Amino acid sequence: MTASALFVDLYEIAMLRAYFELGVAERRASFGLFVRRLPASRNFLLACGLADVLKELQALHYDEDDLRYLASLGFPADFLDWLARFRFTGDIRALPEGTPVFANEPILEVTAPIGEAQIVETLILNQIGLQTILASKAARIVFAARGRAIVDFGARRAQGFDAAVKGARAFSIAGVAATSDLAAGRAHDIPVAGTMAHSFVEACPSEADAFEAYARIFPRTTLLVDTYDALEGVRKVVALAQQMGADFDVHAIRLDSGDPDALSRQARRLLDEGGLARVEILVSGGLDEARIDHLASSGAPIDAFGVGAEMAASTDAPSLDIAYKLIEFAGEGRMKLSPGKRNLPGRKQIFRLFHDGVAVRDVIAREEERYSGVPLLEPVMRDGEIIDRGQSLLDIRDHARAAMAALPADMRSLAPCASPYPVTISVGLADYERRVEASLARETRSPARPPRLTRCS
Amino acid sequence: MTASALFVDLYEIAMLRAYFELGVAERRASFGLFVRRLPASRNFLLACGLADVLKELQALHYDEDDLRYLASLGFPADFLDWLARFRFTGDIRALPEGTPVFANEPILEVTAPIGEAQIVETLILNQIGLQTILASKAARIVFAARGRAIVDFGARRAQGFDAAVKGARAFSIAGVAATSDLAAGRAHDIPVAGTMAHSFVEACPSEADAFEAYARIFPRTTLLVDTYDALEGVRKVVALAQQMGADFDVHAIRLDSGDPDALSRQARRLLDEGGLARVEILVSGGLDEARIDHLASSGAPIDAFGVGAEMAASTDAPSLDIAYKLIEFAGEGRMKLSPGKRNLPGRKQIFRLFHDGVAVRDVIAREEERYSGVPLLEPVMRDGEIIDRGQSLLDIRDHARAAMAALPADMRSLAPCASPYPVTISVGLADYERRVEASLARETRSPARPPRLTRCS
Repeated sequence: MTASALFVDLYEIAMLRAYFELGVAERRASFGLFVRRLPASRNFLLACGLADVLKELQALHYDEDDLRYLASLGFPADFLDWLARFRFTGDIRALPEGTPVFANEPILEVTAPIGEAQIVETLILNQIGLQTILASKAARIVFAARGRAIVDFGARRAQGFDAAVKGARAFSIAGVAATSDLAAGRAHDIPVAGTMAHSFVEACPSEADAFEAYARIFPRTTLLVDTYDALEGVRKVVALAQQMGADFDVHAIRLDSGDPDALSRQARRLLDEGGLARVEILVSGGLDEARIDHLASSGAPIDAFGVGAEMAASTDAPSLDIAYKLIEFAGEGRMKLSPGKRNLPGRKQIFRLFHDGVAVRDVIAREEERYSGVPLLEPVMRDGEIIDRGQSLLDIRDHARAAMAALPADMRSLAPCASPYPVTISVGLADYERRVEASLARETRSPARPPRLTRCS
Repeated sequence: MTASALFVDLYEIAMLRAYFELGVAERRASFGLFVRRLPASRNFLLACGLADVLKELQALHYDEDDLRYLASLGFPADFLDWLARFRFTGDIRALPEGTPVFANEPILEVTAPIGEAQIVETLILNQIGLQTILASKAARIVFAARGRAIVDFGARRAQGFDAAVKGARAFSIAGVAATSDLAAGRAHDIPVAGTMAHSFVEACPSEADAFEAYARIFPRTTLLVDTYDALEGVRKVVALAQQMGADFDVHAIRLDSGDPDALSRQARRLLDEGGLARVEILVSGGLDEARIDHLASSGAPIDAFGVGAEMAASTDAPSLDIAYKLIEFAGEGRMKLSPGKRNLPGRKQIFRLFHDGVAVRDVIAREEERYSGVPLLEPVMRDGEIIDRGQSLLDIRDHARAAMAALPADMRSLAPCASPYPVTISVGLADYERRVEASLARETRSPARPPRLTRCS
């Protein structure tokens, strides 16, 4: 799902116009994307959403309708003429998707003429925020399931079309096995899965009729057994197997209500006694990572979980304190000093240090510094063109699996880890921060005075 | 933002195929949309999102790409030929957008051939869920502001493009004054608003330069004063006014960090002392209804609030327990009996009873029953065509304002009201529910037996 070029806040277009009027729109600036604080219930975030951002940026342009709307808001003709030729021509360095990331670490840095770098703020925050939130939630759910498959049933509960379709992609990167949503399956080449709804059972003359119809039409299908009474439903599956004999090819039953721990054990026994040890059990209905963890650790005979709202909207942490801030302009470091909203100036690199294959510490350094660890940010766009690494979704998923497996074990627990993952700042960056702050403090402590310039030149 | 026809769960297409194979896809069915339980922090929900659903349904069709993808999943040619001609031809009755609604009340009822009524489930849940969640949250924020303007700054924090653009519409219906997002402003003809970012201030040689540039370029602009030190920023605005004289036409200042209560009072005093009593104060940064309520009730001199993440993702209640369930098939009532997931059978009407202009009780009745209150569900689609009432967004907003104003006062408080709004079931509906349940119980209590029919006929 692509955005209109007008997926932008008015103030960004206003600033672009101001840069244009002041004649500085082409001056190079760098902006950095980072999360100020992790949600309390997240030990790390899984960076995600970059590919969609890069596609949007490469295609960014203002069409006739966009310009007409901007004219109606009072933007003048000379600015709109310039905007008609506007393209994103910047460079971007970013964390590969599927990389665990912590507070204050740059997820992405844009270097471009300031007008271009500024105008993409809302797009980048929205899209990387969305997929990072959802991938980070899904990672917890996948950990909780201890190898049992997770199926994304969340399209109906996601916050809109875009969240559902891109969410399925983020879930897949985090290790989710399949999605119920066909638009997502097609868009990202993700396996699709689905069973039947209670309404199908209710529309048939009997539950037994519904089961037989599905079993005859669909090979390897899943039968939903709890429309009226779950264990009676399981008995009807067993009876159907006896009736159909060799034609019976049902893959699984699904339980969507009641106590899944007790019901799955009773259902398993009925299936096994009926000679259906090969029929799996899928559980759905209000599941989150805590409930899945409980079921998986109790040994309930559940083979797969269908997860909806809790994953689809990351209900316990549905938004991120994510920011996109100016870090350099015309060769000089920039930062905010606002209380609680400071940011690190200048272009940066993250070095992840490992000990025996386990990540032990990250160092945020200036871009040109060199450390012994693995540098995480890599060039992904140059002069507005995507640097294509030929990575498939499966490649990204493999990267995410390996990168999460290399975290200290308590980072992968559902409980908040005792101490946060250590992220430090290099001596060089700390020194640079002090120098930039001192120069800004001189500026702002100076007595109020008439502006020196009418142009920011 | 429109969906692909593939914004559907696999199981809905599977059921459609089963209905097609069984020759019953054309049998008429009714489905009802309702919320099982309100979120703990909501006294009511504001129904929203209907207009977008109706537009999607009127346009619904499977194109060549859709059919090719479905073929790749194994759906057979005869079914796909039929699907190529598939259109939504049903009837819909619904609550007008902007109507307060409570648990178990039908928000919408679809009557159509079962295949059509079934296939739209994910679309309807997703879209009405999204806008209803967001409008309901925004209503609380508007109440808390006690007449001060709320501006939607949330596009960057919304869960994706669709949530941002449709969210702005839902916020507007709930009484929000303007949005920062231009795509939303254009799509829904909503006023747009915006100021400047800290990056603009940082990119200028000094804060004073930044303020003067904006004040000269943009009439009635808002200056962001807290990049370095908020009160120093205000002093620079006062100095700029003195310097510019009659050319100074700044509308407001914006505070985005620190303690907004104390800062707004100090800023107000500085502005007033500087002869700028007409310059308003806008506050933003991490606001939710509780913080706005505190600021508004403390008498802080704040004229408007910019609200981001908390409203954009309804962070305290980001998803609804919303369901779309079969209620009638081939003339007979249908319902689930699953524990905790029952639903009311048959087509229904809600009657809202008023006393001295205040809503005192709702009665959910069978569609054909007549009560003294105001019937809330009205026909909105017939034979797949939208029944156009020529309502503008402002009309819907007026309806919402009046309908919320008619609720008991404690429903509009931020705290959970002492007792929920009374919703009762008519004697006729209660009786019908018992009869449907008894007939289903006979079916499901019968011993497991081979199906009577291979066709659901």
